Amino acid sequence: MKIRNEEYNPIEVEEAGVKFFLPEKDSKPESEKKIGKSMSVFYNPRMTINRDLTICVVNTYSKQRTTKLSYCDSMAATGIRAIRLLKQCPGIEKVHINDLNPIAIETIKNNLELNEVPSGQYKLYTKDAKSLLSHFHEDTDEYFDIIDIDPFGSPCQYIPAAMQSISVSEGGGLLCATATDTPVLFGIKKEACIRKYLTSPIRTDFLKEMGTRIFIYYLAKIANLFELYIKPVISISANHFVRVFLLVRKGILGVNSNIREFGTYQYCRNCLHRSAEKFEYSKSTMKSNLCPICGETMISSGLLWLGDLHNSEYMTNLEGQLADSLIQSFPSYIQMKKFVELAKNENKFPPYFYSIPKLADSLNCTYPSLGKLREHLKELGHNSSRTHFDPQGLKTTASIVEMKNLLKNFQS
Amino acid sequence: MKIRNEEYNPIEVEEAGVKFFLPEKDSKPESEKKIGKSMSVFYNPRMTINRDLTICVVNTYSKQRTTKLSYCDSMAATGIRAIRLLKQCPGIEKVHINDLNPIAIETIKNNLELNEVPSGQYKLYTKDAKSLLSHFHEDTDEYFDIIDIDPFGSPCQYIPAAMQSISVSEGGGLLCATATDTPVLFGIKKEACIRKYLTSPIRTDFLKEMGTRIFIYYLAKIANLFELYIKPVISISANHFVRVFLLVRKGILGVNSNIREFGTYQYCRNCLHRSAEKFEYSKSTMKSNLCPICGETMISSGLLWLGDLHNSEYMTNLEGQLADSLIQSFPSYIQMKKFVELAKNENKFPPYFYSIPKLADSLNCTYPSLGKLREHLKELGHNSSRTHFDPQGLKTTASIVEMKNLLKNFQS
Repeated sequence: MKIRNEEYNPIEVEEAGVKFFLPEKDSKPESEKKIGKSMSVFYNPRMTINRDLTICVVNTYSKQRTTKLSYCDSMAATGIRAIRLLKQCPGIEKVHINDLNPIAIETIKNNLELNEVPSGQYKLYTKDAKSLLSHFHEDTDEYFDIIDIDPFGSPCQYIPAAMQSISVSEGGGLLCATATDTPVLFGIKKEACIRKYLTSPIRTDFLKEMGTRIFIYYLAKIANLFELYIKPVISISANHFVRVFLLVRKGILGVNSNIREFGTYQYCRNCLHRSAEKFEYSKSTMKSNLCPICGETMISSGLLWLGDLHNSEYMTNLEGQLADSLIQSFPSYIQMKKFVELAKNENKFPPYFYSIPKLADSLNCTYPSLGKLREHLKELGHNSSRTHFDPQGLKTTASIVEMKNLLKNFQS
Repeated sequence: MKIRNEEYNPIEVEEAGVKFFLPEKDSKPESEKKIGKSMSVFYNPRMTINRDLTICVVNTYSKQRTTKLSYCDSMAATGIRAIRLLKQCPGIEKVHINDLNPIAIETIKNNLELNEVPSGQYKLYTKDAKSLLSHFHEDTDEYFDIIDIDPFGSPCQYIPAAMQSISVSEGGGLLCATATDTPVLFGIKKEACIRKYLTSPIRTDFLKEMGTRIFIYYLAKIANLFELYIKPVISISANHFVRVFLLVRKGILGVNSNIREFGTYQYCRNCLHRSAEKFEYSKSTMKSNLCPICGETMISSGLLWLGDLHNSEYMTNLEGQLADSLIQSFPSYIQMKKFVELAKNENKFPPYFYSIPKLADSLNCTYPSLGKLREHLKELGHNSSRTHFDPQGLKTTASIVEMKNLLKNFQS
């Protein structure tokens, strides 16, 4: 395969029944190739769940809309996601495929041809994603119904542009955004988090949930700048990425309701007590800095999203789609099923969880299975749920004191 | 005067030696005309200090630069400011004059002609300011050295666009931004402040300083989104507007140093104790919510700018310019002189002041002149300064207890 006068060895790959080429300059066996920015065109098989889930969420979204939809993949790489959307989402009429890398665009052209996509169904761009998104409406008088922001690293710089080109008609546009800069979101690179995501993280035992809520907070804040507001429909943290799907709508009342979902975590590093308080903008009264359990000084995060992570209608629809034979053929079907099972009850609990191994560690004791713990919590009158954020995490209304007593009782 | 086939009665006005026309449909005497959005083209003689000060700040800025400069007035109205800059700022080579209102553009054309401005010195645009600013670099491969954002109301929506078209070479571009939505900045419309300026105000007796610092915080936050950082050079709150002049530069280290200037106010509504603490992002430790003086629960603002409001070099240069005969001919010369006198020491004190009448009110007592108070403060070992934010305000290192004792002592 020749692209721009250079010879590439096209590797044919298949994902969920869709074939596509990856251009490679060398002919190393697949197992020796490193996935990352050094690839001619980026493709990460570990991100399959990202694409599989997108198909399902877009199919749910399409059902809420009365017209055929446009989708923009602003950083399309091989084009696999856009092609899959055309093939596997009946609601999609047209895809706008962009990549700044000309080799990616040549690859996408080959892949569109390989999949016999009619030329009326797509449009190609070789632009900086920011530039495409921020000028699209002005240049064409159109908006995108669905925008995908899926960069290698932080998505922050693309979000203001996306807010300028997303449709807000009929219940809002669908923004799909991925962050792979998890050390920033999870509080390991604190300064970068403040700089990029506008808020300050803290170190807790529920980092992945905090990071996801920081990401949503950022998306809401940027939407709010444009008098838009957001409504998360599905949020997932998996395989070193966070991906959120959210509706973007217009209106000041909605902006105000977004603001009411912002709040902070308070965390006691001494006894591991945690709480989350929505920001009471009408009061401004300061909260006590002392742990209500042990009296030590607590730490606090900056503002983040304390509202729902998922929309129940979308979650129910997603669960329903798992019975579909096409969805069952998806490579990450098992992982998606697991996700739905673990995530579907997350909204019903406080916006944090307990990492059982960390708790046991602090008590210097062992711990039983989560199933056993949940039984005992039920006896104490506490509901609980596992969480997709952590295989050993438990969401519950029980306090840290109750959790510790429970673990201690298991030792005897 | 005919504009777009409608007859206008041109009113000739003069400001700082520059003549210009205002188009008016009716021929009411000047005294009966209302200034506001209802005017065909907006001109506010009460904003003269805004323009006079801009001339002085731009002249200071030009001295730091080695090349001739471009200036963009993104909402030019009559064009008076742009024309004055061409006439009164030797460093300005070209002005870009924009107004969305076609009547304004016709007026500006007449005014350019009246002032015999050569056609090579200006360029006219009839665009939405956001659109002009966000596309300018892409369309022309140029940046503006100086950008003026001076809308009727909130400037927030224009700032992201300005950050995309401002030059960051040679020590940075100069952004001049005005906010006239002071009820929002000063905490009267709290919800709108959170929505527009990204932070929450509180009710204190130093509202104008708080509002100015909220405005600068917002400008810094938006700059930071684009990996830019800001350095305020002159900040003024006067006649129901806040105007700040700031350098905009590029770099992550600078962004991090901006973040270190953010912090919150703590305020006790019981005893009027106030403090300001920079946000210690490395710690996250919560502050006590109890007033260190009286033990009551305090209120706290959201993050705002606690760094310098003015740059000492700019302030000194501004003071020097007051000896210039051109500057002395400016209509707001006296007001500018007063501003420099009151503002030049503000940086040396904590980022708040005491409103002496409010303090006296809380004690149900009278109060002496600020001069007398300052003498007594000096005897107690406290420096103090008047402030341009409030004719009855005092900046000092003295605590609320010392201030109250001082006022009480004056009663006997």
